[in-house]
Amino acid sequence: MSQTATLPLELSDVQGQADKRGLAIDRVGVRGLAYPITVLDRAKGKQETVGRITLSVGLPHDMRGTHMSRFIEIFERHRGEMTVRTLPRLLDDMRERLDAEASQIEISFPYFLERSAPVTGSTALLEYGCTFRGERNGQHEAFTLGVEVPVSTLCPCSKEISDYGAHSQRGYVSVEVRSTDFDDHDLIWIEEIIEWVEESASAPVYPLLKRPDERHVTMQAYDNPRFVEDVVREVGLRLREDERVAWFRVHAENHESIHNHSAFAEIEWERPEA
Amino acid sequence: MSQTATLPLELSDVQGQADKRGLAIDRVGVRGLAYPITVLDRAKGKQETVGRITLSVGLPHDMRGTHMSRFIEIFERHRGEMTVRTLPRLLDDMRERLDAEASQIEISFPYFLERSAPVTGSTALLEYGCTFRGERNGQHEAFTLGVEVPVSTLCPCSKEISDYGAHSQRGYVSVEVRSTDFDDHDLIWIEEIIEWVEESASAPVYPLLKRPDERHVTMQAYDNPRFVEDVVREVGLRLREDERVAWFRVHAENHESIHNHSAFAEIEWERPEA
Amino acid sequence: MSQTATLPLELSDVQGQADKRGLAIDRVGVRGLAYPITVLDRAKGKQETVGRITLSVGLPHDMRGTHMSRFIEIFERHRGEMTVRTLPRLLDDMRERLDAEASQIEISFPYFLERSAPVTGSTALLEYGCTFRGERNGQHEAFTLGVEVPVSTLCPCSKEISDYGAHSQRGYVSVEVRSTDFDDHDLIWIEEIIEWVEESASAPVYPLLKRPDERHVTMQAYDNPRFVEDVVREVGLRLREDERVAWFRVHAENHESIHNHSAFAEIEWERPEA
Amino acid sequence: MSQTATLPLELSDVQGQADKRGLAIDRVGVRGLAYPITVLDRAKGKQETVGRITLSVGLPHDMRGTHMSRFIEIFERHRGEMTVRTLPRLLDDMRERLDAEASQIEISFPYFLERSAPVTGSTALLEYGCTFRGERNGQHEAFTLGVEVPVSTLCPCSKEISDYGAHSQRGYVSVEVRSTDFDDHDLIWIEEIIEWVEESASAPVYPLLKRPDERHVTMQAYDNPRFVEDVVREVGLRLREDERVAWFRVHAENHESIHNHSAFAEIEWERPEA
Repeated sequence: MSQTATLPLELSDVQGQADKRGLAIDRVGVRGLAYPITVLDRAKGKQETVGRITLSVGLPHDMRGTHMSRFIEIFERHRGEMTVRTLPRLLDDMRERLDAEASQIEISFPYFLERSAPVTGSTALLEYGCTFRGERNGQHEAFTLGVEVPVSTLCPCSKEISDYGAHSQRGYVSVEVRSTDFDDHDLIWIEEIIEWVEESASAPVYPLLKRPDERHVTMQAYDNPRFVEDVVREVGLRLREDERVAWFRVHAENHESIHNHSAFAEIEWERPEA
Repeated sequence: MSQTATLPLELSDVQGQADKRGLAIDRVGVRGLAYPITVLDRAKGKQETVGRITLSVGLPHDMRGTHMSRFIEIFERHRGEMTVRTLPRLLDDMRERLDAEASQIEISFPYFLERSAPVTGSTALLEYGCTFRGERNGQHEAFTLGVEVPVSTLCPCSKEISDYGAHSQRGYVSVEVRSTDFDDHDLIWIEEIIEWVEESASAPVYPLLKRPDERHVTMQAYDNPRFVEDVVREVGLRLREDERVAWFRVHAENHESIHNHSAFAEIEWERPEA
Repeated sequence: MSQTATLPLELSDVQGQADKRGLAIDRVGVRGLAYPITVLDRAKGKQETVGRITLSVGLPHDMRGTHMSRFIEIFERHRGEMTVRTLPRLLDDMRERLDAEASQIEISFPYFLERSAPVTGSTALLEYGCTFRGERNGQHEAFTLGVEVPVSTLCPCSKEISDYGAHSQRGYVSVEVRSTDFDDHDLIWIEEIIEWVEESASAPVYPLLKRPDERHVTMQAYDNPRFVEDVVREVGLRLREDERVAWFRVHAENHESIHNHSAFAEIEWERPEA
Repeated sequence: MSQTATLPLELSDVQGQADKRGLAIDRVGVRGLAYPITVLDRAKGKQETVGRITLSVGLPHDMRGTHMSRFIEIFERHRGEMTVRTLPRLLDDMRERLDAEASQIEISFPYFLERSAPVTGSTALLEYGCTFRGERNGQHEAFTLGVEVPVSTLCPCSKEISDYGAHSQRGYVSVEVRSTDFDDHDLIWIEEIIEWVEESASAPVYPLLKRPDERHVTMQAYDNPRFVEDVVREVGLRLREDERVAWFRVHAENHESIHNHSAFAEIEWERPEA
């Protein structure tokens, strides 16, 4: 195409101009990028999925702009494994290439686990929404794992006050945890969080249930009524007891079957300094 | 601002150019417009709400483009009441001002009804998602009303095969109806569709339930188990019996509390010519 | 219905049970409630719209649950005006009725302003997404206003390096501000935030533009190229200079027309203690 | 868990009951299922991605319900390749296992292509939203491919009436095509649709553009102004000329950078019988 023929030898770097407004920018970068990624899977080693990605850096008060295309170049170069092992290198690369003190990354992705029905053992895959959030600022670094777990909850009040039956509904429990350390032996698995949440609800949800399984989970839920308040406390107790957890936030939300709104509860907690 | 000083007396009309590609366009217009609107309310006469609007016309094969700004001008002029009574005039205005044979409009809006709890009678508002769809093409005109009704459903299979309990969940039933006529006496009310749907589900949902009410709806749902298949059939029977209904589509979707996916059923029906 | 005949005189209060798990809950309440509301309008006094509402309280470590239905009762009783003047009373009512130290409310709603085209003066309504966030905890109270303003941005780099043209796109600038005080004379208007943002972008967006207007905004944007970094700084300078602002966060996001992802920048700032 | 000990030898089949309401159901099944899938990739042979799936069958007027769990069993068994080659077998399996005359499937997934910047040749992945829709009813079968292509459009009117500049924006062009035949040699590739759409817009969008590339696409768009009307016609002409295409719908929508609403155009076309 003809316009490339007139390409000046040197295109000016507008982003690189000095800025006199005196305001540093906390985060500048790209959002809504999608990429195939590979994440760790406790049972199978690795799992292929698709990530939605936000990449950013801090911008000092005296620089006009960042070079947005470099975020994509860096991510493209690191393409593939996105895990607690590789994110620190990606964060460092972003700091170096973009000349920044602080860098941040957030990746959301569907994660799949094979689940067996409780009686017949029939298996199929269940999806969990997960998020990795990493940041590095000078010597400080933090890595947060987020997992959203669908569950079944049955209302303790409805069961108690009714002669028969009790309303149940689907709920979503979102757990975010920050580890005390980044060492491999301290890794908290997505699978562990799912287990803690499912133990805290009235019953797990499953992708595939045959009649004997449906009978089982129906009665399991009726035997274990839980408010959203109960769910966040039960999950919170399990997280607090685990020494690997430095901080957590647990949010449980019920899509109430007797209302057109949700009930929710949330606990945020930080481990006190030793 | 200085550029207006240089405004040419006549700005050329690029959209009005002739087109030689020989392809007529079925619909061209604007989407994602939001506006405060007034709709009919059976109990109170009128109700103020906010509409999301799509406006379009057909474009003949020999015109390059339509004049998008006129859609906004026309809608602004008709601003206010958006009802089965006013839409025909709006559709005609669009055809005239945009020189088109066919015109279409779609308005989605939240509609609120005061609902009383079944035992204590406590009242609060419940939201229903509604849609008006109107089109006019030469002498042909059609008006479709859509209402999405949240309900509670309790699984007949789960109740039958379990010693106690039964899983329930929130479901959404979407009904679209086209009337045989546009006369006022043939008007189908949003409120009527809500009643038909609620009678067809295990129990209605409510905005506000005190303990005696929660006890009531818990047992009501247990006494009236319904599959999505049952719900669409029950709604369909009521619609088919009503002579005002020329066509309908009913879609019921349960946010299953034992799965992380939905179960759905759908019936479309047209009244046979007399 | 027959089951009400068997209603026990006293239904037990399961939520009111003592809890021994020793974990306080930061927020427990209802989400996804929708209600018609009235908000303040600088030009017209009041404006009717529809709000999406979250209501919550803190729950002490020794109480099992909160009484969710009371949130709806309280909101229903305060129904109508939702403004900086009425939210404090609503927050206090929630604390009292739900026996809580802390209460929180969040209301999101579309807000409409009549906008005149820059040359022809043609008017129509433009929608802005707004949010009120209020909380009260013991003697501490905070009120945050959020406004999302759509704008047009034209890329300074694209303009500088190209022989002609420059890519432009729609962007959204989200501003959250917390006031130093709740007195009426300190009220920051939605309309003021919109003005500050529009001055900071390449050009405002309009609901209705005739050809002379489109010519005007096309050249206005070309004359005022802005990166997202420029936008957040320009908005930030205006907010910092206003003594009423105690804290702000500005987030600008461009739906880049040359990519399928967004570019964004964000500044958070708190006024230093005097 | 103890309740399984009491499992009756035979759990009754509530879904299998006879129905007397006399209403057949057009579609009954599951929605919102997510699964890792493999699709065909013209360059690499295969591509791993994640699909959102709807599976359904028709239900005769005299059967009360379908067996929802079988949808998951069947999909789980066919897990893996989801292509025009495998969907017919899946559709037939659904008909057989669920005792139905008609079966339908819809799978939506992100598809990734490596795109090279037009001047520097820098490469990265770009995401396209795709959908497969297949149905089989007795001897009739149909397969529809849907692709949503992000593009850049520059307004012909704005360019013509302004002394300099022209507003541009991101647009999305959704193409659905139905083939005349299911034979392999008639396969229409996702990649072909993307090419046709990109040729019809002002310029493609890219994941990664360095400065010389940004200069190129800026001028390319300015040299090729396009209304949404132009885009749907240009795409429509290409589709009509291709003998493999039996039916298409093209929808182009611009996220106008001078408004807060979209402009759109849509053409639906069916090849006349020979």
